[in-house]
Amino acid sequence: MQFLSSSSRCYLSPPSSAFTLRRLFTSLRATMGSSEELLRKTLAEKLTVIESQGNIVRDLKSSASDKSALDEAIKTLNALKLEKSSIEQQLLASSSSSNVGGVNKEVFRKNLVNTLERRLFYIPSFKIYSGVAGLYDYGPPGCAVKSNVLAFWRQHFVLEENMLEVDCPCVTPEVVLKASGHVDKFTDLMVKDEKTGTCYRADHLLKDFCKEKLEKDLSLSVEKVQELKHVLAMLDDFSPEQLGSKIKEYGIVAPETKNALSDPYPFNLMFQTSIGPSGTIPGYMRPETAQGIFVNFKDLYYYNGSKLPFAAAQIGQAFRNEISPRQGLLRVREFTLAEIEHFVDPEDKSHPKYSEVVDLEFLMYPREEQMTGKDAVNLRLGDAVSNGTVNNETLAYFIGRVYLFLTQLGISKERLRFRQHLANEMAHYAADCWDAEIECSYGWIECVGIADRSAYDLRAHSEKSGTPLVAHEKFSAPKEVEKLVITPVKKELGLAFKGNQKKIVEALEAMDEKEAMEVKAALESKGEVEFQVCTLGKAVTIKSNMVSVSKEIKKEHQRVFTPSVIEPSFGIGRIIYCLFEHSFYTRKSKAGDEELNVFRFPPVVAPIKCTVFPLVQNSKYEAVAKQISRSLTAAGISHKIDITGTSIGKRYARTDELGVPFAITVDTTTTVTIRERDSKDQIRVEIEKVAGVVKDVTDGVRTWPDIQWEYPAHSSTVTDADE
Amino acid sequence: MQFLSSSSRCYLSPPSSAFTLRRLFTSLRATMGSSEELLRKTLAEKLTVIESQGNIVRDLKSSASDKSALDEAIKTLNALKLEKSSIEQQLLASSSSSNVGGVNKEVFRKNLVNTLERRLFYIPSFKIYSGVAGLYDYGPPGCAVKSNVLAFWRQHFVLEENMLEVDCPCVTPEVVLKASGHVDKFTDLMVKDEKTGTCYRADHLLKDFCKEKLEKDLSLSVEKVQELKHVLAMLDDFSPEQLGSKIKEYGIVAPETKNALSDPYPFNLMFQTSIGPSGTIPGYMRPETAQGIFVNFKDLYYYNGSKLPFAAAQIGQAFRNEISPRQGLLRVREFTLAEIEHFVDPEDKSHPKYSEVVDLEFLMYPREEQMTGKDAVNLRLGDAVSNGTVNNETLAYFIGRVYLFLTQLGISKERLRFRQHLANEMAHYAADCWDAEIECSYGWIECVGIADRSAYDLRAHSEKSGTPLVAHEKFSAPKEVEKLVITPVKKELGLAFKGNQKKIVEALEAMDEKEAMEVKAALESKGEVEFQVCTLGKAVTIKSNMVSVSKEIKKEHQRVFTPSVIEPSFGIGRIIYCLFEHSFYTRKSKAGDEELNVFRFPPVVAPIKCTVFPLVQNSKYEAVAKQISRSLTAAGISHKIDITGTSIGKRYARTDELGVPFAITVDTTTTVTIRERDSKDQIRVEIEKVAGVVKDVTDGVRTWPDIQWEYPAHSSTVTDADE
Repeated sequence: MQFLSSSSRCYLSPPSSAFTLRRLFTSLRATMGSSEELLRKTLAEKLTVIESQGNIVRDLKSSASDKSALDEAIKTLNALKLEKSSIEQQLLASSSSSNVGGVNKEVFRKNLVNTLERRLFYIPSFKIYSGVAGLYDYGPPGCAVKSNVLAFWRQHFVLEENMLEVDCPCVTPEVVLKASGHVDKFTDLMVKDEKTGTCYRADHLLKDFCKEKLEKDLSLSVEKVQELKHVLAMLDDFSPEQLGSKIKEYGIVAPETKNALSDPYPFNLMFQTSIGPSGTIPGYMRPETAQGIFVNFKDLYYYNGSKLPFAAAQIGQAFRNEISPRQGLLRVREFTLAEIEHFVDPEDKSHPKYSEVVDLEFLMYPREEQMTGKDAVNLRLGDAVSNGTVNNETLAYFIGRVYLFLTQLGISKERLRFRQHLANEMAHYAADCWDAEIECSYGWIECVGIADRSAYDLRAHSEKSGTPLVAHEKFSAPKEVEKLVITPVKKELGLAFKGNQKKIVEALEAMDEKEAMEVKAALESKGEVEFQVCTLGKAVTIKSNMVSVSKEIKKEHQRVFTPSVIEPSFGIGRIIYCLFEHSFYTRKSKAGDEELNVFRFPPVVAPIKCTVFPLVQNSKYEAVAKQISRSLTAAGISHKIDITGTSIGKRYARTDELGVPFAITVDTTTTVTIRERDSKDQIRVEIEKVAGVVKDVTDGVRTWPDIQWEYPAHSSTVTDADE
Repeated sequence: MQFLSSSSRCYLSPPSSAFTLRRLFTSLRATMGSSEELLRKTLAEKLTVIESQGNIVRDLKSSASDKSALDEAIKTLNALKLEKSSIEQQLLASSSSSNVGGVNKEVFRKNLVNTLERRLFYIPSFKIYSGVAGLYDYGPPGCAVKSNVLAFWRQHFVLEENMLEVDCPCVTPEVVLKASGHVDKFTDLMVKDEKTGTCYRADHLLKDFCKEKLEKDLSLSVEKVQELKHVLAMLDDFSPEQLGSKIKEYGIVAPETKNALSDPYPFNLMFQTSIGPSGTIPGYMRPETAQGIFVNFKDLYYYNGSKLPFAAAQIGQAFRNEISPRQGLLRVREFTLAEIEHFVDPEDKSHPKYSEVVDLEFLMYPREEQMTGKDAVNLRLGDAVSNGTVNNETLAYFIGRVYLFLTQLGISKERLRFRQHLANEMAHYAADCWDAEIECSYGWIECVGIADRSAYDLRAHSEKSGTPLVAHEKFSAPKEVEKLVITPVKKELGLAFKGNQKKIVEALEAMDEKEAMEVKAALESKGEVEFQVCTLGKAVTIKSNMVSVSKEIKKEHQRVFTPSVIEPSFGIGRIIYCLFEHSFYTRKSKAGDEELNVFRFPPVVAPIKCTVFPLVQNSKYEAVAKQISRSLTAAGISHKIDITGTSIGKRYARTDELGVPFAITVDTTTTVTIRERDSKDQIRVEIEKVAGVVKDVTDGVRTWPDIQWEYPAHSSTVTDADE
């Protein structure tokens, strides 16, 4: 109890950073490339040289001297100007990093989002009523992708690791979120347009200002660039005062009206409501799913046979009333989270399956590299643990499992990194924290947070609820331990302090060892001591007959402790959006007159696993197509049958744009062709075997190359001609 | 537009019944058994006879007459009293129907709920903070059952029928729920304890009163019984005034305090919140998922190639701020709905797969049977359609599919019926409506509503949003149709009415055919007409130069119409609770000293598909168990491995109580036994084949008898001895 209340006191002290860990998905940290720095320096030097060369030209002109000297000087000036604009172009390209794989990222995104919305992967919610910012619907293909991602998540984490999955309500009474700290601290800083009252996120305005300056103002001095980049890096840690003064300093105004802005003030991001008809139980829509697991710790621990470690998991909706939602699916007001809370003994954070991930090697971005302005590095996970970069085996195990999960979904290995939180980003209680960041056209996006939160959450709920959320370790033999025993003498305290007796007893019992031994010494030497009682707001005089303090040797049969929790927390919508970006590409139609869109979803993610097309409209082929469709349904394979007379090439193109990996074309009544989306390779398979083949390759039992090896290749002039 | 606004006007007229269809899951209608009526009549007659016999005895006593005559009269009286108490016992047994399968239903439920909560199938949410009424968490086995039910729902409906699944947010702006009618009409009637302010649902208090009277007061006259049963049957249709007067008439007071109650008044059941930081966008947590589909109709219709019929589906959380939640999972404040909106041409409600359900036969409870006090009857679905009991093929098709869904999940056929809504239960616009009701210890519970809602919802959103939510039927050849053409002359109207011109133009254009032809006739005969403009609240004089009305023959190339919607809506939590009741049983332990709990979940539903037990603690057996566990994980089969030294019988009993259908016991290093939960039969299978066998039987590819036929039976004295 002692430790709990002191922990809670600490928790309240760092007001702005307390939520850095729980406030998943907030920062889009800009990093300073060294090549960019060099370019800016070169540019500044070049401008100085151009200025002096311009002066030389002017002098030569005014002195009406040697014509050939003037021509030479002008020639030099022009050459310098050419060099300058070449540097400017390089700088533009590097500083805004506006290109992705050679394509301008805004153009790429526009085409992608247009495709996603047109094919109903997702659409703004309530569109016929002009929508609401930050709310999106998943249409049929998007909804299928989401189910597939969640099903794979369940298989990869819950089933593989025997996790205890729970399902708790979104409506949450205030007391729970008071204990977790959300009621007091789950805020963003907001500024208001002083005339219209329109609200903005203060940090967004400052971030936009800095980014735009950095991207568009090539004349910035290296020092100014450094300053702006520093502001971007520190954004999450600014106090309201610091943010407000930067906004004033840079002269930032309301974007639409150019009106002045108010000082920043905190806005709580939870959707508030009221539970029951009387209006007396305040509640919120949960901002994360984790609390539902923490409050059930006692039951879950018992369910697990009172053994550690174990993990609980939850998939569900979470809600954040964002001040100004933007960036499509990346910052929304309602989203699906998948969270794991892995409870471990704080004295033993090893993991039995650690050896399975120890040899994985991928991009990591440790604190050290970030602080020294370096890039992310390829590290072997085992090395990162053994050299102390990653705090413990369990944390590393989950980092490895997250890496496998994301790459198996189709996230590109080159555009995925694990970034360690800087000391200033982490809550004081956290032991270590890594974010899986995925690069997309918006930059590096935090998609999974993997944090060792120590005992913080369980302690907070133990304290608030009065229910101890602890684990027990039975000793094989009893251990002798020295225990502090504080025994207040209630009768004497009652006589001396009347109604204040209870608070004084509590304060005495709550003393830590150091304080208690000081009190003991004072009582023994002076017979009394001045004792500060916070809950009374004053000191009282305690005499030696009022309390006894001693140390006793006791036999203990078990150790009672609050488990640490390691929390991997997945923003499903963000992962899906990044997956869309990494899967999308275009290719020329056969005729070369059109750019066709394709999503290269792996079969596990693809919204529809295959299509069934009769090559031409013909009742025999249709009957075969329907027969195949029935066998696919029986095998549980989502598919689409298209018996329209549209050309086969157009039908392929339509479904390539939905990311359908396999197309079955019925061109005889005995065998059919199966075409793979990306290679466009075709094989010929007997009708009875089709469903089994598709099932194997979508379930991951066999790969496409396995199957190509087994069945004859098919090359058709008819089908190809159309593509 | 004309039609839309008139429809909306109609919608507002029947205030209390407008929501009967959308307000799924409200009634627990009591039905009057004819045997009970007979018993009550006999009892009343018997009481009369006893009274007169009592008088005879008294007379004989007072007249001090013939001792033998007195003895004879007393003997008769005693015999009559015996008969009376026998009737009373029969009546108690029948009226309260307090027994389920020979077990008292309260005892059954207590044991069930105790088991469910102890094994964490579900638990009250936020228990360490004393919980919140009407909110429950699903713990690990319950969460797994729920995922399994939803996965099977997706397979059975979405995949089988190629439905368009969508996923929309819970947070919904007010305008959407204003259009749907929820803001104005989604209410329950509430009464308050006049002293403490505690709130109650008015109909619940009245229902409880009537039920208790009927169950416990055996002296009720047949007329009073009829009256109370009538009140129970009409409860949903009572106006606030009717409810209030019945509460007064029966002297109903607050249950805890016995204080007087306020008059009933409506309480809106939606959780209210505010969207965005400015507090200017009112929003609610959606009370159902259907509206998300309706507002997307236009896009979904296009996605479906602009073809009807098609169905959209959605699984998600819905929220209702119940006044007084009760009955565990049956009436909660947050729950999972799975809803289908099947859009059809109102002129063609046939269904292509109707023939697949036409021969199904099950318990149906048509309106006619309910009105005449009869019981539900076994009907062949095809007959119910052909004799007009079920309105159309599509509705029947879904009734059949729901029947298959529920029974395949494990709902008992004998305790499932489809009850047709009475005329007074249905919204005016509904064509027909049937509820799948499942009998459990609380009575017959509405678990799925299947309604033909005609064009109501799409029209409401078309009107409110201004976006036409319609379908098109292209004619093969253009058709000639006579069309009413109303042409207001804006210039003349503007001169005459200035600022009112716009409203008058709209009112003229909105005339229906009858009204327009009357205006035309008046203008032709008198040159002017008095014309009522509702939006102005007065009549204006229209002259013949201000409007022309004519009928013209026009060629039409397509029919434009609002589709009808047939909506099966599933309360997942209710289905799961009923499944728990139907699956639960107890059996004696082998020693006969204990009652062991078992859930007979079919494999598709079972939270864990199998367990792996080494028979004795032994490193070789443990290695085999772990090898089997790995192969089960790879096959995607949820399982539990238990290597504790607990007796095999106890391990079986523990997992029978979780409804695990198969137990694998490792008793050699080459073959193992598989035990089936309910029969306790065992077979012997080679280690490499185990995962495949379990997968086949849990996927439904093979049945347990198939497998028993293939593998040798195993009878072990060791394992049996323990059970």
